[in-house]
Amino acid sequence: MSKSLPKRSEDYSLWYNELVKRAGLAENSAVRGCMVIKPYGYAIWEKMQRTLDDMFKRTGHENAYFPLFVPKSLFEAEEKNAEGFAKECAVVTHYRLQTDPDRPGKLRVDPNAKLEEELIVRPTSEAIIWSTYKGWIQSYRDLPLLINQWANVVRWEMRTRLFLRTAEFLWQEGHTAHATEGEAVAETRQMLDVYAQFAEEWMALPVVKGVKTENERFAGAVDTYCIEGLMQDGKALQAGTSHFLGQNFAKAFDVQFQTKEGGLEHVWGTSWGVSTRLMGALVMAHSDDEGLVLPPKLAPIQVVIVPIYKTGQLEEVMERIRPMQMGLIARGISVKVDDRDTERPGFKFAEWELKGVPVRIAVGLRDLEAGTVEVARRDTKEKMTLPLADIVNSVDQLLADIQQNIYQRALRFRETHTTRVESYEEFKQVLDTTAGFVLAHYDGTSETEERIKEETKATIRCLALNEPDEDGVCMLTGKPSVRRAYFARAY
Amino acid sequence: MSKSLPKRSEDYSLWYNELVKRAGLAENSAVRGCMVIKPYGYAIWEKMQRTLDDMFKRTGHENAYFPLFVPKSLFEAEEKNAEGFAKECAVVTHYRLQTDPDRPGKLRVDPNAKLEEELIVRPTSEAIIWSTYKGWIQSYRDLPLLINQWANVVRWEMRTRLFLRTAEFLWQEGHTAHATEGEAVAETRQMLDVYAQFAEEWMALPVVKGVKTENERFAGAVDTYCIEGLMQDGKALQAGTSHFLGQNFAKAFDVQFQTKEGGLEHVWGTSWGVSTRLMGALVMAHSDDEGLVLPPKLAPIQVVIVPIYKTGQLEEVMERIRPMQMGLIARGISVKVDDRDTERPGFKFAEWELKGVPVRIAVGLRDLEAGTVEVARRDTKEKMTLPLADIVNSVDQLLADIQQNIYQRALRFRETHTTRVESYEEFKQVLDTTAGFVLAHYDGTSETEERIKEETKATIRCLALNEPDEDGVCMLTGKPSVRRAYFARAY
Repeated sequence: MSKSLPKRSEDYSLWYNELVKRAGLAENSAVRGCMVIKPYGYAIWEKMQRTLDDMFKRTGHENAYFPLFVPKSLFEAEEKNAEGFAKECAVVTHYRLQTDPDRPGKLRVDPNAKLEEELIVRPTSEAIIWSTYKGWIQSYRDLPLLINQWANVVRWEMRTRLFLRTAEFLWQEGHTAHATEGEAVAETRQMLDVYAQFAEEWMALPVVKGVKTENERFAGAVDTYCIEGLMQDGKALQAGTSHFLGQNFAKAFDVQFQTKEGGLEHVWGTSWGVSTRLMGALVMAHSDDEGLVLPPKLAPIQVVIVPIYKTGQLEEVMERIRPMQMGLIARGISVKVDDRDTERPGFKFAEWELKGVPVRIAVGLRDLEAGTVEVARRDTKEKMTLPLADIVNSVDQLLADIQQNIYQRALRFRETHTTRVESYEEFKQVLDTTAGFVLAHYDGTSETEERIKEETKATIRCLALNEPDEDGVCMLTGKPSVRRAYFARAY
Repeated sequence: MSKSLPKRSEDYSLWYNELVKRAGLAENSAVRGCMVIKPYGYAIWEKMQRTLDDMFKRTGHENAYFPLFVPKSLFEAEEKNAEGFAKECAVVTHYRLQTDPDRPGKLRVDPNAKLEEELIVRPTSEAIIWSTYKGWIQSYRDLPLLINQWANVVRWEMRTRLFLRTAEFLWQEGHTAHATEGEAVAETRQMLDVYAQFAEEWMALPVVKGVKTENERFAGAVDTYCIEGLMQDGKALQAGTSHFLGQNFAKAFDVQFQTKEGGLEHVWGTSWGVSTRLMGALVMAHSDDEGLVLPPKLAPIQVVIVPIYKTGQLEEVMERIRPMQMGLIARGISVKVDDRDTERPGFKFAEWELKGVPVRIAVGLRDLEAGTVEVARRDTKEKMTLPLADIVNSVDQLLADIQQNIYQRALRFRETHTTRVESYEEFKQVLDTTAGFVLAHYDGTSETEERIKEETKATIRCLALNEPDEDGVCMLTGKPSVRRAYFARAY
């Protein structure tokens, strides 16, 4: 609280890192690339989890839990998947430590406790789960199999950033098996819709739904669908993916089922996931130079009440605050009363602004005598004097307004940062000025995509599902194109 | 469903393993010692989690998340803790795989990707958490620090059993820091009470609260408190532990705070945990030769409704079932209607018995005409014909009765399997006949405790908190004793 945050306009990246730490969301740990998720950050993640979990259950999924470790021989069974993750795997090779004979009081790996087969710490769980599904699926009656898992995974990233890219992260991974290709594709699309709904209605983050190009596809998938959000620095962020796996894993792990007609076929698979990366998206989409701006639906504390008083008055003010507090709680609103006698109101205001509490109510005896309280909304910083008598309804409405407003603000930002360009020159110019999403024609080849990436650091975020067909020519090669792609520099 | 379960009286151990698998709770995985928790088992665990999490929050705790990995240098900082867990640690030594030059399509550990410092997969998180607390605690204002974590941990056990002892398991671990010894001891005892309340009121498992002897103490703790339950084979099971850590970890990780008076002192710590082991306790405490018997408060499905019909009548019966189903749901009761047209009622009855659904309602047209339904309770297998008009109230009451009844049954079992003995002969005889808890005097030394363990396989489960002082003599050495200890063979 001692010094102000770096400004977004001066150093967006530093602003983000400092904000995440100072608001109490997360910090770096003693383990390279791994973070500690602090209580306030974890409380937001818990709200995300609870909401998503309810959505998964309403769409027929059940939770289960599979091992953290994947034996190497299973890991390598689906070749593309293995190849895609091999370079960033943490590998367990031993199962015991012993006293180090050379350094008293210290431990070393026991050379006699080497595993016969190395264990991979799961970077994703397709391999271990499909090897299990082989035992669960015999007949069409066992399908569809609709399972989700909440878990930690490890990907040994070289350059890490709190929430956005960490060696260990928390996520959910859905893994489903179906009798037909059509059902599996429908499941893939359904879960993409669930993610988009969550992003827009709960995170207040507008997203583009689309499909990845081959270059950006999940290793082992036939198609990767994604939702892409836009951050305030004009960079895109992939906020969730849903993969149609075809029969790739079913074939790699020999998962076949007896059809109604008595035949034997490989099942069709999907997998889909969102992670603690969503926390990074939430921070970067809405927050400002004073601190976090949280959508009310995900804020651990929705309203903070700060008593304003002179020495000796605290008890009297607190007594007047209590009915309001109880009224808000009864309405299902989470309230914090900051009755610390060690800090001044100005300090408290700044602290709750930093933490992104959507609504702040300041209550002093003079206001109370007039039958009013002072209400400040975090998103616009607007202050209002509102009648105490109707405060619960007012706050309830205000929270709904804030949720809407920050969504609309993010949507307007995306609209003003989505540009259609007709030439490569224009493309590069937009990237270096307004940035954001750039919709451009390209010839559909990996080579062109790769060259654009090398020259501009922009990648194809997706081929948007709602983007209409439009004849055009590739901005780079002049070859024909039938639809624009969403390009952007991205996290 | 094809063959019946092994009987408890014939092979308790086989009965347990088969039941866990056939009821769909868990199964062994492709990874040595690691299990897959299946959807039905996970649904019970989720209910446990939700309940415990609420209890932790009501007692002022917040959740957070700390890294899966512990660098070896941190791991070894608290010597006793390190020594206690060193022999069962999974160790990550490399962070990359590469194509095996000798075996095309296969992978091997990349010898150039060796970690400078090995990472221990957490067997418990004191080390990583206390190294973090050093940064969080400066002043008495930062205390108490009351944090809980839901996580997976790994202990490389050589002999594993589903839920009871697995290489990886899920648990929660609370880690708190306090300004005074008194506060830390009070926290340790409070969490023991929380665990006991959960075990008794939710799991319907009566437990003995006590403190462990030095031999059985958590590595690094000053005192380990525990709750001990009794299984139907007369063996005890430790269902939760709460450790008073003194200043051991604060000293090992140099966590000091400025006192109100301006001094500098090490903080006092606690840690406490329960794990998926509770699932094993739940199964072994109540279930019978037909399958699971679940306490209604933790049953994922509390009531199953089975329509009884002749060909062509299903739709009519279902239509009559719906209002009852809706009424039960409105009362907050979880209901499953088993409308499968592919299985006969007898098959369905056996399946839901195996899965331990507390109440089964069979509904046929003839009953409906008489305004009744047939209700069967899982715990006593009693069948009743009850009026349809009042069925929601009846079922609600019945669920409460079942919860009470299985608790009382387990309590009676414990009472008839708790024996006070006066001699070592008697002690050994009881262990080999009724088994259960044996209350005996011993001289309080580790040597005597160790010798008893070697000769009888019985350990001191705890020194019970409510056991009165009583002068006596050690059954083995004849030396004086002031209180009886709880002995048992144990899981």
